[in-house]
Amino acid sequence: MTIRIGIVTVSDRASKGVYQDLGGPAIKDCLTEILSCSWEPAARLIPDEQARIEATLIELCDRDGCCLVVTTGGTGPALRDVTPEATEAVCDKILDGFGEQMRAVSLKVVPTAVLSRQIAGVRGKSLIVNLPGKPSAIRDCLLAVFPAIPYCIDLLEGPYLTTNETLVKAFRPKK
Amino acid sequence: MTIRIGIVTVSDRASKGVYQDLGGPAIKDCLTEILSCSWEPAARLIPDEQARIEATLIELCDRDGCCLVVTTGGTGPALRDVTPEATEAVCDKILDGFGEQMRAVSLKVVPTAVLSRQIAGVRGKSLIVNLPGKPSAIRDCLLAVFPAIPYCIDLLEGPYLTTNETLVKAFRPKK
Amino acid sequence: MTIRIGIVTVSDRASKGVYQDLGGPAIKDCLTEILSCSWEPAARLIPDEQARIEATLIELCDRDGCCLVVTTGGTGPALRDVTPEATEAVCDKILDGFGEQMRAVSLKVVPTAVLSRQIAGVRGKSLIVNLPGKPSAIRDCLLAVFPAIPYCIDLLEGPYLTTNETLVKAFRPKK
Repeated sequence: MTIRIGIVTVSDRASKGVYQDLGGPAIKDCLTEILSCSWEPAARLIPDEQARIEATLIELCDRDGCCLVVTTGGTGPALRDVTPEATEAVCDKILDGFGEQMRAVSLKVVPTAVLSRQIAGVRGKSLIVNLPGKPSAIRDCLLAVFPAIPYCIDLLEGPYLTTNETLVKAFRPKK
Repeated sequence: MTIRIGIVTVSDRASKGVYQDLGGPAIKDCLTEILSCSWEPAARLIPDEQARIEATLIELCDRDGCCLVVTTGGTGPALRDVTPEATEAVCDKILDGFGEQMRAVSLKVVPTAVLSRQIAGVRGKSLIVNLPGKPSAIRDCLLAVFPAIPYCIDLLEGPYLTTNETLVKAFRPKK
Repeated sequence: MTIRIGIVTVSDRASKGVYQDLGGPAIKDCLTEILSCSWEPAARLIPDEQARIEATLIELCDRDGCCLVVTTGGTGPALRDVTPEATEAVCDKILDGFGEQMRAVSLKVVPTAVLSRQIAGVRGKSLIVNLPGKPSAIRDCLLAVFPAIPYCIDLLEGPYLTTNETLVKAFRPKK
Protein backbone atom coordinates (compact mmCIF):
# COMPACT_ATOMS: atom_id res chain seq x y z
CA MET A 1 0.00 0.00 0.00
CA THR A 2 1.57 3.25 -1.19
CA ILE A 3 1.51 6.05 1.36
CA ARG A 4 0.25 9.08 -0.53
CA ILE A 5 0.18 12.62 0.87
CA GLY A 6 -1.64 15.50 -0.79
CA ILE A 7 0.05 18.90 -0.91
CA VAL A 8 -2.24 21.73 -1.99
CA THR A 9 -0.97 25.25 -2.62
CA VAL A 10 -3.86 27.71 -2.61
CA SER A 11 -2.87 31.02 -4.19
CA ASP A 12 -4.41 33.20 -6.88
CA ARG A 13 -1.06 34.64 -7.87
CA ALA A 14 1.09 31.50 -7.78
CA SER A 15 -1.57 29.60 -9.78
CA LYS A 16 -1.45 32.33 -12.47
CA GLY A 17 2.34 32.21 -12.55
CA VAL A 18 2.66 35.77 -11.16
CA TYR A 19 5.06 34.38 -8.62
CA GLN A 20 6.62 31.05 -7.81
CA ASP A 21 4.93 28.55 -5.49
CA LEU A 22 7.23 28.40 -2.48
CA GLY A 23 4.77 26.84 -0.01
CA GLY A 24 4.16 23.55 -1.82
CA PRO A 25 7.87 22.71 -2.25
CA ALA A 26 8.53 23.78 1.36
CA ILE A 27 5.93 21.26 2.57
CA LYS A 28 7.39 18.52 0.38
CA ASP A 29 10.92 19.20 1.69
CA CYS A 30 9.75 19.27 5.30
CA LEU A 31 7.80 15.99 4.95
CA THR A 32 10.86 14.39 3.31
CA GLU A 33 12.88 15.33 6.36
CA ILE A 34 10.22 14.15 8.82
CA LEU A 35 9.12 10.81 7.34
CA SER A 36 11.29 7.69 7.45
CA CYS A 37 8.76 5.52 5.57
CA SER A 38 8.47 5.69 1.80
CA TRP A 39 5.69 7.95 0.53
CA GLU A 40 4.67 9.84 -2.57
CA PRO A 41 3.40 13.39 -2.88
CA ALA A 42 0.31 14.40 -4.86
CA ALA A 43 0.85 18.12 -5.44
CA ARG A 44 -1.75 20.63 -6.63
CA LEU A 45 -1.58 24.39 -7.29
CA ILE A 46 -4.96 26.11 -7.39
CA PRO A 47 -6.49 29.60 -7.02
CA ASP A 48 -8.36 30.88 -3.93
CA GLU A 49 -11.74 29.59 -5.10
CA GLN A 50 -13.75 27.74 -2.46
CA ALA A 51 -15.43 25.31 -4.87
CA ARG A 52 -12.08 24.49 -6.48
CA ILE A 53 -10.40 23.90 -3.10
CA GLU A 54 -13.25 21.65 -1.96
CA ALA A 55 -13.13 19.61 -5.20
CA THR A 56 -9.35 19.22 -4.91
CA LEU A 57 -9.53 18.07 -1.27
CA ILE A 58 -12.29 15.58 -2.07
CA GLU A 59 -10.35 14.18 -5.02
CA LEU A 60 -7.14 13.75 -3.01
CA CYS A 61 -8.97 12.07 -0.11
CA ASP A 62 -11.60 9.95 -1.84
CA ARG A 63 -10.10 9.10 -5.25
CA ASP A 64 -6.35 9.26 -4.64
CA GLY A 65 -6.51 7.74 -1.14
CA CYS A 66 -4.21 10.27 0.52
CA CYS A 67 -4.06 9.51 4.26
CA LEU A 68 -2.94 13.09 4.87
CA VAL A 69 -3.59 16.26 2.89
CA VAL A 70 -1.83 19.48 3.83
CA THR A 71 -2.67 22.87 2.38
CA THR A 72 -0.74 26.15 2.30
CA GLY A 73 -2.25 29.59 1.80
CA GLY A 74 -5.65 31.21 2.09
CA THR A 75 -6.06 31.13 5.87
CA GLY A 76 -5.94 34.87 6.64
CA PRO A 77 -8.78 37.34 7.27
CA ALA A 78 -8.92 38.80 3.72
CA LEU A 79 -11.92 38.39 1.44
CA ARG A 80 -10.16 35.93 -0.90
CA ASP A 81 -8.93 33.71 1.97
CA VAL A 82 -11.30 30.74 1.95
CA THR A 83 -9.14 27.66 2.61
CA PRO A 84 -10.58 27.04 6.13
CA GLU A 85 -14.13 27.44 4.79
CA ALA A 86 -13.43 24.82 2.09
CA THR A 87 -11.75 22.51 4.59
CA GLU A 88 -14.63 22.72 7.05
CA ALA A 89 -17.14 22.08 4.27
CA VAL A 90 -15.54 18.76 3.26
CA CYS A 91 -14.66 17.46 6.74
CA ASP A 92 -16.74 15.17 8.96
CA LYS A 93 -15.00 16.28 12.16
CA ILE A 94 -12.93 19.36 13.00
CA LEU A 95 -9.93 18.93 15.32
CA ASP A 96 -9.67 22.32 17.05
CA GLY A 97 -6.44 21.39 18.81
CA PHE A 98 -4.41 21.67 15.60
CA GLY A 99 -5.34 25.30 14.94
CA GLU A 100 -4.80 26.19 18.59
CA GLN A 101 -1.36 24.57 18.74
CA MET A 102 -0.19 25.97 15.39
CA ARG A 103 -1.27 29.49 16.34
CA ALA A 104 0.41 29.16 19.76
CA VAL A 105 3.68 28.11 18.10
CA SER A 106 3.50 30.86 15.45
CA LEU A 107 2.60 33.49 18.07
CA LYS A 108 6.06 33.01 19.57
CA VAL A 109 7.46 34.28 16.25
CA VAL A 110 4.96 36.93 15.06
CA PRO A 111 1.97 38.54 16.82
CA THR A 112 -0.02 38.41 13.57
CA ALA A 113 -0.31 34.61 13.99
CA VAL A 114 -3.52 35.48 15.84
CA LEU A 115 -5.00 36.33 12.41
CA SER A 116 -4.55 32.81 11.06
CA ARG A 117 -7.72 30.77 10.70
CA GLN A 118 -5.90 27.45 10.10
CA ILE A 119 -7.95 24.37 10.96
CA ALA A 120 -7.59 20.62 10.63
CA GLY A 121 -10.22 17.96 10.22
CA VAL A 122 -11.06 14.43 9.22
CA ARG A 123 -12.73 13.43 5.96
CA GLY A 124 -13.42 9.69 5.92
CA LYS A 125 -10.02 8.07 6.45
CA SER A 126 -8.01 11.21 5.65
CA LEU A 127 -6.62 13.94 7.86
CA ILE A 128 -6.59 17.43 6.32
CA VAL A 129 -4.36 20.12 7.87
CA ASN A 130 -4.18 23.79 6.87
CA LEU A 131 -0.68 25.26 7.12
CA PRO A 132 0.39 28.93 6.81
CA GLY A 133 1.69 30.39 3.55
CA LYS A 134 5.22 31.32 4.59
CA PRO A 135 7.85 28.52 4.34
CA SER A 136 9.42 29.17 7.77
CA ALA A 137 5.98 29.16 9.42
CA ILE A 138 5.06 25.97 7.52
CA ARG A 139 8.04 24.22 9.07
CA ASP A 140 7.32 25.49 12.60
CA CYS A 141 3.72 24.32 12.38
CA LEU A 142 4.42 20.91 10.80
CA LEU A 143 7.10 20.08 13.36
CA ALA A 144 4.78 21.13 16.20
CA VAL A 145 1.81 18.96 15.25
CA PHE A 146 3.51 16.03 13.48
CA PRO A 147 4.15 13.98 16.66
CA ALA A 148 0.36 13.39 16.81
CA ILE A 149 -0.26 12.72 13.10
CA PRO A 150 0.84 9.05 12.78
CA TYR A 151 -1.43 7.98 15.66
CA CYS A 152 -4.29 10.03 14.22
CA ILE A 153 -3.89 8.17 10.94
CA ASP A 154 -3.83 4.85 12.85
CA LEU A 155 -7.18 5.81 14.43
CA LEU A 156 -8.52 6.53 10.93
CA GLU A 157 -7.36 3.02 9.90
CA GLY A 158 -4.79 4.41 7.47
CA PRO A 159 -1.18 3.34 6.77
CA TYR A 160 1.50 3.13 9.43
CA LEU A 161 3.67 6.27 9.21
CA THR A 162 7.13 6.31 10.74
CA THR A 163 9.29 9.36 11.42
CA ASN A 164 12.91 10.31 11.76
CA GLU A 165 12.90 10.37 15.54
CA THR A 166 15.72 12.86 15.94
CA LEU A 167 13.46 15.44 14.27
CA VAL A 168 9.92 14.31 15.18
CA LYS A 169 9.10 11.67 17.75
CA ALA A 170 5.75 10.18 16.78
CA PHE A 171 3.70 9.28 19.85
CA ARG A 172 1.52 6.17 19.98
CA PRO A 173 -0.07 5.29 23.35
CA LYS A 174 0.60 1.76 24.63
CA LYS A 175 -2.47 -0.46 24.37
CA MET B 1 -31.34 21.02 47.63
CA THR B 2 -29.26 17.96 46.76
CA ILE B 3 -26.23 18.68 44.61
CA ARG B 4 -26.33 16.09 41.86
CA ILE B 5 -23.54 15.54 39.32
CA GLY B 6 -23.93 13.39 36.21
CA ILE B 7 -21.05 11.09 35.25
CA VAL B 8 -21.39 9.59 31.79
CA THR B 9 -19.01 6.96 30.46
CA VAL B 10 -19.29 6.71 26.68
CA SER B 11 -17.72 3.50 25.40
CA ASP B 12 -18.93 0.76 23.07
CA ARG B 13 -16.73 -1.84 24.71
CA ALA B 14 -17.22 -0.94 28.37
CA SER B 15 -21.00 -0.77 27.85
CA LYS B 16 -20.93 -4.31 26.40
CA GLY B 17 -18.82 -5.57 29.30
CA VAL B 18 -15.80 -6.26 27.04
CA TYR B 19 -13.74 -4.30 29.49
CA GLN B 20 -14.24 -2.54 32.77
CA ASP B 21 -15.32 1.10 32.94
CA LEU B 22 -12.32 2.89 34.46
CA GLY B 23 -13.23 6.45 33.42
CA GLY B 24 -16.51 6.77 35.32
CA PRO B 25 -15.08 5.61 38.69
CA ALA B 26 -12.00 7.83 38.12
CA ILE B 27 -14.26 10.87 37.72
CA LYS B 28 -16.23 9.93 40.85
CA ASP B 29 -13.04 9.52 42.89
CA CYS B 30 -11.60 12.79 41.61
CA LEU B 31 -14.81 14.74 42.36
CA THR B 32 -14.88 13.19 45.86
CA GLU B 33 -11.39 14.55 46.44
CA ILE B 34 -12.22 17.99 45.00
CA LEU B 35 -15.62 18.75 46.54
CA SER B 36 -16.06 19.65 50.22
CA CYS B 37 -19.87 20.01 49.94
CA SER B 38 -22.11 16.96 49.97
CA TRP B 39 -23.18 15.73 46.55
CA GLU B 40 -24.49 12.63 44.85
CA PRO B 41 -23.37 11.07 41.58
CA ALA B 42 -25.73 9.99 38.80
CA ALA B 43 -23.62 7.54 36.81
CA ARG B 44 -24.40 6.20 33.33
CA LEU B 45 -22.53 3.77 31.04
CA ILE B 46 -23.60 3.96 27.40
CA PRO B 47 -22.28 3.06 23.91
CA ASP B 48 -20.87 5.57 21.39
CA GLU B 49 -24.25 6.33 19.83
CA GLN B 50 -24.97 10.02 19.30
CA ALA B 51 -28.73 9.80 19.89
CA ARG B 52 -28.16 7.81 23.08
CA ILE B 53 -25.58 10.28 24.39
CA GLU B 54 -27.87 13.22 23.66
CA ALA B 55 -30.83 11.54 25.41
CA THR B 56 -28.67 10.74 28.45
CA LEU B 57 -27.33 14.31 28.73
CA ILE B 58 -30.84 15.77 28.40
CA GLU B 59 -32.20 13.41 31.06
CA LEU B 60 -29.40 14.21 33.52
CA CYS B 61 -29.78 17.97 33.00
CA ASP B 62 -33.53 18.45 32.62
CA ARG B 63 -35.08 15.62 34.62
CA ASP B 64 -32.45 14.81 37.25
CA GLY B 65 -31.40 18.44 37.78
CA CYS B 66 -27.65 17.82 37.65
CA CYS B 67 -25.85 21.17 37.91
CA LEU B 68 -22.80 19.57 36.32
CA VAL B 69 -22.51 16.64 33.91
CA VAL B 70 -19.10 15.26 33.01
CA THR B 71 -18.47 12.72 30.28
CA THR B 72 -15.52 10.44 29.56
CA GLY B 73 -14.73 8.85 26.22
CA GLY B 74 -15.63 9.39 22.58
CA THR B 75 -13.74 12.65 21.96
CA GLY B 76 -11.10 11.42 19.51
CA PRO B 77 -10.98 11.64 15.70
CA ALA B 78 -12.27 8.11 14.98
CA LEU B 79 -15.56 7.42 13.24
CA ARG B 80 -17.30 6.16 16.40
CA ASP B 81 -16.19 9.16 18.51
CA VAL B 82 -19.28 11.37 18.72
CA THR B 83 -19.40 12.69 22.29
CA PRO B 84 -18.58 16.31 21.28
CA GLU B 85 -21.20 16.18 18.51
CA ALA B 86 -23.83 15.03 21.03
CA THR B 87 -22.73 17.65 23.56
CA GLU B 88 -22.88 20.47 21.04
CA ALA B 89 -26.31 19.33 19.86
CA VAL B 90 -27.86 19.61 23.35
CA CYS B 91 -26.08 22.79 24.54
CA ASP B 92 -27.32 26.38 24.28
CA LYS B 93 -23.83 27.87 24.52
CA ILE B 94 -20.38 26.39 23.95
CA LEU B 95 -17.53 27.50 26.23
CA ASP B 96 -14.44 27.18 24.00
CA GLY B 97 -12.08 28.01 26.84
CA PHE B 98 -12.58 24.61 28.48
CA GLY B 99 -11.44 22.62 25.46
CA GLU B 100 -8.50 24.97 24.92
CA GLN B 101 -7.33 24.75 28.53
CA MET B 102 -7.77 20.99 28.81
CA ARG B 103 -5.84 20.40 25.57
CA ALA B 104 -3.09 22.79 26.72
CA VAL B 105 -2.74 20.89 30.00
CA SER B 106 -2.79 17.46 28.32
CA LEU B 107 -0.30 18.61 25.65
CA LYS B 108 2.30 18.94 28.39
CA VAL B 109 1.94 15.17 28.92
CA VAL B 110 1.30 13.72 25.44
CA PRO B 111 1.48 15.33 21.96
CA THR B 112 -1.63 13.40 20.89
CA ALA B 113 -3.71 15.68 23.15
CA VAL B 114 -4.04 17.80 20.00
CA LEU B 115 -6.39 15.08 18.67
CA SER B 116 -8.91 15.55 21.48
CA ARG B 117 -12.13 17.28 20.50
CA GLN B 118 -13.31 17.82 24.10
CA ILE B 119 -15.77 20.67 24.53
CA ALA B 120 -17.89 22.12 27.31
CA GLY B 121 -21.19 23.92 27.15
CA VAL B 122 -24.27 25.08 28.97
CA ARG B 123 -27.70 23.48 28.71
CA GLY B 124 -30.27 25.49 30.65
CA LYS B 125 -28.89 25.58 34.22
CA SER B 126 -26.39 22.76 33.71
CA LEU B 127 -22.74 22.79 32.72
CA ILE B 128 -21.61 19.83 30.57
CA VAL B 129 -17.88 19.07 30.30
CA ASN B 130 -16.26 16.41 28.12
CA LEU B 131 -13.22 14.75 29.72
CA PRO B 132 -10.69 12.39 28.12
CA GLY B 133 -10.95 8.61 28.43
CA LYS B 134 -7.76 7.86 30.34
CA PRO B 135 -7.97 8.15 34.18
CA SER B 136 -4.72 10.12 34.58
CA ALA B 137 -5.80 12.58 31.86
CA ILE B 138 -9.24 12.88 33.48
CA ARG B 139 -7.60 14.01 36.70
CA ASP B 140 -5.27 16.50 34.98
CA CYS B 141 -8.17 18.06 33.09
CA LEU B 142 -10.62 18.20 36.02
CA LEU B 143 -8.05 19.81 38.33
CA ALA B 144 -7.18 22.36 35.62
CA VAL B 145 -10.69 23.61 34.95
CA PHE B 146 -12.39 23.04 38.32
CA PRO B 147 -11.35 26.41 39.84
CA ALA B 148 -13.82 28.05 37.40
CA ILE B 149 -16.70 25.57 37.74
CA PRO B 150 -18.35 26.72 41.02
CA TYR B 151 -18.62 30.32 39.75
CA CYS B 152 -19.95 29.09 36.41
CA ILE B 153 -22.68 27.19 38.26
CA ASP B 154 -23.43 30.34 40.33
CA LEU B 155 -23.93 32.24 37.04
CA LEU B 156 -26.33 29.49 35.92
CA GLU B 157 -28.25 29.97 39.21
CA GLY B 158 -27.33 26.50 40.42
CA PRO B 159 -26.25 25.26 43.89
CA TYR B 160 -23.25 26.66 45.76
CA LEU B 161 -20.33 24.25 45.31
CA THR B 162 -17.39 24.33 47.70
CA THR B 163 -14.00 22.71 47.22
CA ASN B 164 -11.12 21.34 49.26
CA GLU B 165 -8.94 24.40 48.82
CA THR B 166 -5.64 22.61 49.23
CA LEU B 167 -6.44 20.73 46.01
CA VAL B 168 -8.64 23.17 44.04
CA LYS B 169 -9.13 26.81 44.93
CA ALA B 170 -12.52 27.83 43.52
CA PHE B 171 -12.46 31.42 42.31
CA ARG B 172 -15.43 33.74 42.73
CA PRO B 173 -14.92 37.42 41.79
CA LYS B 174 -15.80 39.96 44.50
CA LYS B 175 -19.03 41.80 43.72
CA MET C 1 -10.27 59.66 5.70
CA THR C 2 -11.29 59.78 9.35
CA ILE C 3 -10.34 56.70 11.35
CA ARG C 4 -13.46 55.74 13.28
CA ILE C 5 -13.60 53.04 15.97
CA GLY C 6 -16.84 51.71 17.42
CA ILE C 7 -17.02 51.10 21.17
CA VAL C 8 -20.08 49.13 22.25
CA THR C 9 -20.96 48.56 25.90
CA VAL C 10 -23.43 45.72 26.23
CA SER C 11 -25.10 45.73 29.64
CA ASP C 12 -28.70 45.55 30.79
CA ARG C 13 -27.95 47.42 33.99
CA ALA C 14 -25.62 50.10 32.66
CA SER C 15 -28.03 50.83 29.79
CA LYS C 16 -30.86 51.37 32.33
CA GLY C 17 -28.66 53.64 34.44
CA VAL C 18 -28.59 51.17 37.38
CA TYR C 19 -24.84 51.56 37.35
CA GLN C 20 -22.25 53.52 35.49
CA ASP C 21 -20.70 52.23 32.27
CA LEU C 22 -17.06 51.62 33.17
CA GLY C 23 -16.16 49.35 30.24
CA GLY C 24 -16.80 51.79 27.38
CA PRO C 25 -14.68 54.61 28.88
CA ALA C 26 -11.94 52.08 29.78
CA ILE C 27 -11.76 51.02 26.11
CA LYS C 28 -11.64 54.65 24.96
CA ASP C 29 -8.83 55.46 27.40
CA CYS C 30 -6.87 52.37 26.43
CA LEU C 31 -7.20 53.08 22.68
CA THR C 32 -6.11 56.69 23.30
CA GLU C 33 -2.95 55.36 24.94
CA ILE C 34 -2.31 52.79 22.19
CA LEU C 35 -2.97 54.79 19.00
CA SER C 36 -0.61 57.47 17.71
CA CYS C 37 -2.78 58.31 14.67
CA SER C 38 -5.81 60.56 15.02
CA TRP C 39 -9.11 58.71 15.40
CA GLU C 40 -12.64 59.27 16.63
CA PRO C 41 -14.75 57.00 18.82
CA ALA C 42 -18.35 56.04 18.06
CA ALA C 43 -19.67 54.93 21.44
CA ARG C 44 -22.89 53.02 22.11
CA LEU C 45 -24.50 51.73 25.33
CA ILE C 46 -27.12 49.01 24.78
CA PRO C 47 -28.86 46.20 26.69
CA ASP C 48 -28.07 42.47 26.34
CA GLU C 49 -30.52 41.93 23.48
CA GLN C 50 -29.12 39.95 20.56
CA ALA C 51 -31.10 41.76 17.85
CA ARG C 52 -30.09 45.14 19.26
CA ILE C 53 -26.41 44.17 19.43
CA GLU C 54 -26.48 42.88 15.85
CA ALA C 55 -28.15 46.07 14.58
CA THR C 56 -25.61 48.23 16.41
CA LEU C 57 -22.64 46.28 15.02
CA ILE C 58 -24.04 46.44 11.47
CA GLU C 59 -24.65 50.19 11.76
CA LEU C 60 -21.13 50.89 13.06
CA CYS C 61 -19.51 48.76 10.35
CA ASP C 62 -21.66 49.44 7.29
CA ARG C 63 -23.02 52.96 7.80
CA ASP C 64 -20.43 54.61 10.04
CA GLY C 65 -17.44 52.95 8.37
CA CYS C 66 -15.67 51.92 11.58
CA CYS C 67 -12.55 49.91 10.66
CA LEU C 68 -12.60 48.41 14.16
CA VAL C 69 -15.48 47.79 16.54
CA VAL C 70 -14.80 46.63 20.08
CA THR C 71 -17.46 45.44 22.51
CA THR C 72 -17.45 45.00 26.28
CA GLY C 73 -19.83 42.80 28.26
CA GLY C 74 -22.13 39.88 27.60
CA THR C 75 -19.53 37.19 26.89
CA GLY C 76 -20.10 34.93 29.92
CA PRO C 77 -22.08 31.68 30.22
CA ALA C 78 -25.27 33.24 31.68
CA LEU C 79 -28.59 33.23 29.85
CA ARG C 80 -28.51 36.99 29.11
CA ASP C 81 -24.94 36.86 27.73
CA VAL C 82 -25.37 36.97 23.95
CA THR C 83 -22.62 39.26 22.63
CA PRO C 84 -20.66 36.42 20.95
CA GLU C 85 -23.85 35.08 19.36
CA ALA C 86 -24.61 38.54 17.92
CA THR C 87 -21.01 38.98 16.75
CA GLU C 88 -20.93 35.60 15.03
CA ALA C 89 -24.27 36.32 13.34
CA VAL C 90 -23.00 39.50 11.66
CA CYS C 91 -19.46 38.34 10.76
CA ASP C 92 -18.30 36.80 7.47
CA LYS C 93 -15.28 35.13 9.07
CA ILE C 94 -14.42 34.26 12.67
CA LEU C 95 -10.80 34.66 13.82
CA ASP C 96 -10.47 32.01 16.55
CA GLY C 97 -6.96 33.15 17.48
CA PHE C 98 -8.26 36.30 19.19
CA GLY C 99 -10.47 34.44 21.66
CA GLU C 100 -7.73 31.90 22.35
CA GLN C 101 -5.09 34.55 23.00
CA MET C 102 -7.34 36.75 25.13
CA ARG C 103 -8.40 33.79 27.28
CA ALA C 104 -4.77 32.65 27.63
CA VAL C 105 -3.76 36.13 28.83
CA SER C 106 -6.72 36.44 31.21
CA LEU C 107 -6.15 32.92 32.58
CA LYS C 108 -2.85 34.14 34.03
CA VAL C 109 -4.91 36.51 36.20
CA VAL C 110 -8.12 34.59 37.02
CA PRO C 111 -9.09 30.94 36.44
CA THR C 112 -12.63 32.01 35.51
CA ALA C 113 -11.25 33.40 32.23
CA VAL C 114 -12.04 29.93 30.89
CA LEU C 115 -15.73 30.94 31.07
CA SER C 116 -15.32 33.80 28.61
CA ARG C 117 -16.79 33.22 25.17
CA GLN C 118 -15.09 36.26 23.58
CA ILE C 119 -14.65 36.03 19.82
CA ALA C 120 -13.47 38.26 17.01
CA GLY C 121 -14.45 38.33 13.38
CA VAL C 122 -14.56 40.25 10.14
CA ARG C 123 -17.63 41.92 8.69
CA GLY C 124 -16.85 43.35 5.25
CA LYS C 125 -13.95 45.75 5.85
CA SER C 126 -14.38 45.91 9.62
CA LEU C 127 -12.80 43.91 12.43
CA ILE C 128 -15.06 43.24 15.44
CA VAL C 129 -13.48 42.18 18.74
CA ASN C 130 -15.30 41.17 21.93
CA LEU C 131 -13.55 42.29 25.12
CA PRO C 132 -14.34 41.32 28.73
CA GLY C 133 -16.47 43.50 31.00
CA LYS C 134 -13.92 44.38 33.68
CA PRO C 135 -11.67 47.41 32.95
CA SER C 136 -8.41 45.71 34.02
CA ALA C 137 -9.21 42.68 31.86
CA ILE C 138 -10.12 44.96 28.94
CA ARG C 139 -6.67 46.49 29.09
CA ASP C 140 -4.86 43.11 29.35
CA CYS C 141 -6.76 41.78 26.34
CA LEU C 142 -6.42 44.88 24.14
CA LEU C 143 -2.67 45.14 24.77
CA ALA C 144 -2.26 41.42 23.99
CA VAL C 145 -4.00 41.41 20.62
CA PHE C 146 -3.38 44.96 19.39
CA PRO C 147 0.02 44.23 17.78
CA ALA C 148 -1.89 42.25 15.11
CA ILE C 149 -4.79 44.67 14.58
CA PRO C 150 -3.20 47.31 12.27
CA TYR C 151 -2.05 44.62 9.80
CA CYS C 152 -5.45 42.93 9.96
CA ILE C 153 -7.06 46.25 9.00
CA ASP C 154 -4.51 46.63 6.16
CA LEU C 155 -5.62 43.20 4.86
CA LEU C 156 -9.24 44.40 5.01
CA GLU C 157 -8.18 47.47 2.94
CA GLY C 158 -8.93 49.85 5.79
CA PRO C 159 -7.01 52.90 7.06
CA TYR C 160 -3.38 52.77 8.18
CA LEU C 161 -3.30 52.63 12.00
CA THR C 162 -0.16 53.59 13.88
CA THR C 163 0.62 52.88 17.52
CA ASN C 164 2.69 54.26 20.35
CA GLU C 165 5.47 51.73 20.00
CA THR C 166 6.61 51.85 23.60
CA LEU C 167 3.22 50.42 24.57
CA VAL C 168 2.18 48.34 21.52
CA LYS C 169 4.48 47.45 18.66
CA ALA C 170 2.28 46.93 15.60
CA PHE C 171 3.65 44.16 13.40
CA ARG C 172 3.48 44.33 9.61
CA PRO C 173 5.34 41.63 7.66
CA LYS C 174 7.82 42.88 5.06
CA LYS C 175 6.59 42.36 1.50
